[in-house]
Amino acid sequence: MTRHCPNLLVVAAAATILLLNPAVQAQGFGGRGPRVVSPEVADGKVTFRILAPEAKAVQLSGSDIPGVGGGAELTKNDQGVWEASLDVAPGCYRYNFNVDGVSVIDPRNPATSESNANTWSLVAVPGADWMDTREVPHGAVAEVTYHSSSLNRFRRMHVYTPPGYENGEGRFPVFYLLHGASDSDNSWSTVGRAGFILDNLIATGKAKPMIVVMPAGHTGAFSFGGPRPTVDEFSEDFLKDIMPYVESHYRVHADRQHRALAGLSMGGGQTLNIGIPHLDQFAYLGVYSSGIFGIIPRPNGPAPQGPTFEEQHRAVLDNAALKPGLKLFWFATGKDDFLIETSRATVAMFKKHGFNVAFKETEGGHTWINWREYLNEFAPQLFQ
Amino acid sequence: MTRHCPNLLVVAAAATILLLNPAVQAQGFGGRGPRVVSPEVADGKVTFRILAPEAKAVQLSGSDIPGVGGGAELTKNDQGVWEASLDVAPGCYRYNFNVDGVSVIDPRNPATSESNANTWSLVAVPGADWMDTREVPHGAVAEVTYHSSSLNRFRRMHVYTPPGYENGEGRFPVFYLLHGASDSDNSWSTVGRAGFILDNLIATGKAKPMIVVMPAGHTGAFSFGGPRPTVDEFSEDFLKDIMPYVESHYRVHADRQHRALAGLSMGGGQTLNIGIPHLDQFAYLGVYSSGIFGIIPRPNGPAPQGPTFEEQHRAVLDNAALKPGLKLFWFATGKDDFLIETSRATVAMFKKHGFNVAFKETEGGHTWINWREYLNEFAPQLFQ
Repeated sequence: MTRHCPNLLVVAAAATILLLNPAVQAQGFGGRGPRVVSPEVADGKVTFRILAPEAKAVQLSGSDIPGVGGGAELTKNDQGVWEASLDVAPGCYRYNFNVDGVSVIDPRNPATSESNANTWSLVAVPGADWMDTREVPHGAVAEVTYHSSSLNRFRRMHVYTPPGYENGEGRFPVFYLLHGASDSDNSWSTVGRAGFILDNLIATGKAKPMIVVMPAGHTGAFSFGGPRPTVDEFSEDFLKDIMPYVESHYRVHADRQHRALAGLSMGGGQTLNIGIPHLDQFAYLGVYSSGIFGIIPRPNGPAPQGPTFEEQHRAVLDNAALKPGLKLFWFATGKDDFLIETSRATVAMFKKHGFNVAFKETEGGHTWINWREYLNEFAPQLFQ
Repeated sequence: MTRHCPNLLVVAAAATILLLNPAVQAQGFGGRGPRVVSPEVADGKVTFRILAPEAKAVQLSGSDIPGVGGGAELTKNDQGVWEASLDVAPGCYRYNFNVDGVSVIDPRNPATSESNANTWSLVAVPGADWMDTREVPHGAVAEVTYHSSSLNRFRRMHVYTPPGYENGEGRFPVFYLLHGASDSDNSWSTVGRAGFILDNLIATGKAKPMIVVMPAGHTGAFSFGGPRPTVDEFSEDFLKDIMPYVESHYRVHADRQHRALAGLSMGGGQTLNIGIPHLDQFAYLGVYSSGIFGIIPRPNGPAPQGPTFEEQHRAVLDNAALKPGLKLFWFATGKDDFLIETSRATVAMFKKHGFNVAFKETEGGHTWINWREYLNEFAPQLFQ
C-alpha cells in the first residue's frame, strides 16, 4: 500500500533501482566503499577526488588550473581515495584524472565539456559577477542538428537565443562565435560560459540582445598521420549551410550591419579565412589569441609554398569601399601566448592595408581565462 | 608567410596546439602509443576500445547492451589496447569502462549522456527509422537555466521546440516528460533520443508539433545515508516554477487540453503524484515502467504508515467531472520489468475508480529500449 508522503516512496524506490545498477555500484555509491564527493568547491579551493584503491599513481590534468599544467599529483588516503585541493580563482575549468596512464573524467561529476574527440569534467567556481549564473533573465542554449549539403552529413551547432526570444517578436543581430583547435560546438557554452556572459551583459544593458551561433569548426576527427582536407571544408559549411540555416530558421537581420564573426585560436584563423574574402557580409570581426597562421616563418619549417594570405586577398585588402562598413576589427592576445607574434604580425599587415584595427595585448596566455574575458569585452561593442 | 590553402595551415597549427596539451598526449593522440578508435560502429557490431597498458582487468558496463549487464570482459592486445566487439541492435546506448575498479568513460568518445551524479559515454547505432537522425526538419533542444523559487536555487531543464518554432508564429501544446531515478534533465534528449523521435513523428504527420519540456526530477544528489526531503520538492518546483516558466517564456496554450505529462520509472511516480491531485490541469498522462511505488507491499518491508495514495486522493479519484477531460491515461511496462506488478496494481486501482486506462504490457524490462518505444507510441496520441 502506498503511504503518506509519496515522494519519500519515490526516493526509496529510486534507491532500489540505483542499487540494482552495477555501474552505479562500481562508482562508490551505496554502501560499498567510501562516499566520494568531487569536485568540492569551498573557500576559494577546489578539491578533486577519485576512488582508485588499486592505482599506483593518479594525476590531475586541467587547463587553466594554477599549478596543474600537465599533471598535479594526487595523494591517496587509507580508503583508496586520491585527492588534491587547489587554490582556484573564480571561473570555469576543465579537468581530467590520469589513473595509471588512463585518462578518466571525474566519475562523480555529471558536468562535462566536449572537445572534438574527448570529453572533460567541468567545474564552475563562482565569484565573478560577469560570468556567474545570476538572478537575471536567462537566454537558452540550443543544440541544433542541421544537414550540411557541403559536407553531406548531419552536423551540430549550438545557438544562444537571448532572454525573451522564444515568446517574443522582432529580429535580432547574429554573432557567429568559433571555437579553437581540438574543441567542439559545445565548448563555448560550457567552459566558455558564453550564454551566462551574454545573459549578464544583456541584463546590465552593456550588450544588445543578440543571437550567438556556435558552430562546429572541425569537419572531421583529428588524425595527425591521416589525410588532410584538400578544400576548406569549414568555410564551405559555414557559408553554404550554417549561415543560410540560421537566417532561415531564426528571426534575424540578414545583412552586414547585423552580422559579427569571431573566434579563438584556430577559430580566429577561420574568422579571417571567412571574414576577409566575404568582408561585404560582416561588420564586426574578432580574433582572439590568433592571427594568420604561418605569417611568422618558422625557423626550421618547410619552405613556404603558394601565395600568402596577403597575396591571395589583395583585392579585398585594398578595397577602400569595404572598410567603412567594418565597424569593428578587434584582436586580443595574451603577452604569454605562443601566438603573440602571429597576432602582432597579422595586425601590422592589416594596418599596412589601411584597416582600423583594435589590438589589445593582455596578460596571460592561450587560455579560456582570457577567451571568456575577450568575449565579455567584445560582445558589448557589437551592433551599437 | 602564409601560403596557399589557409585551412591546411589551420590544421597544422591545430596539430601543434594539440600536441602541446599534456592531457591530449595522455589520451593516445599524436605519435605516442597506438591510435585508438572507440566506439566503432559497423555491420551491426559496436567495438569498444580503451588504451590501458597497465591495467589488470577492464570491463564494459552498459545499460541495454545485450550480454553486458554488470560487466563484459575486454581483452588486451600487445599494444595495451583493451577491446570488446558486441552485436548491438539499432538504438542508443550508454556505457562505461571499469578499469581496475575505476569507472571510466570512453576517453576517445566525446558523446556523453548525463545522469544525476555521473556521466556515461554514449553510442548511437543507426538503423531504426523512427529514432535515427534523418533528413527531415529538425527541432532544437535547448538547455534552459531558471531560478526555482521553491528550491531557492538555479535549476536546469531541457526544452525541445518543434521544427520552425524559432522563426514561426502561433502557440503550441506542451508535453512535460520526466526522467527516472538517478538520471537528469539531459537523459531524455541524449540516450532517450526524444528530439529525434519527435522530429520523425512530426515529419511523417504522426504527431502534432509540440513543445517537449524535460525537467530535472531530482532535487538533490542521491545520498542513501543522508537526510531525505520532508516535502515533495519536485512537485513544488514543477508546479510553482517549471510550468509557470514555460508558460511565460514559450508560445504555448496554457490550458488542460494542451498539457500532457509523462515519465518513466521514478518519473512515472512523479507523474501520478503531480497529475492526479491536479487532474484539472492535464488532459494526457503517461506512466512508463512505473506505477504507484509501494502499492505492492514488500514481503519483509517496513510496516506501512499513513494513508495510501488511494486514500489521499479519493476526492479526485471519485470526481466524475474530471474524467471526461482526461483524454488519455496510458501505461506501458515490460513483462520482465521488476515493476510490472506495481503497474498492474496501479492500473487496477485506477480502473476500480472508473478511469479509462490504456495499459500495454510489452516485451522487455526496465530499459531505454522500451522507453524510447513508449515515447514513440505515446506522443502521436497527444493533442489530436
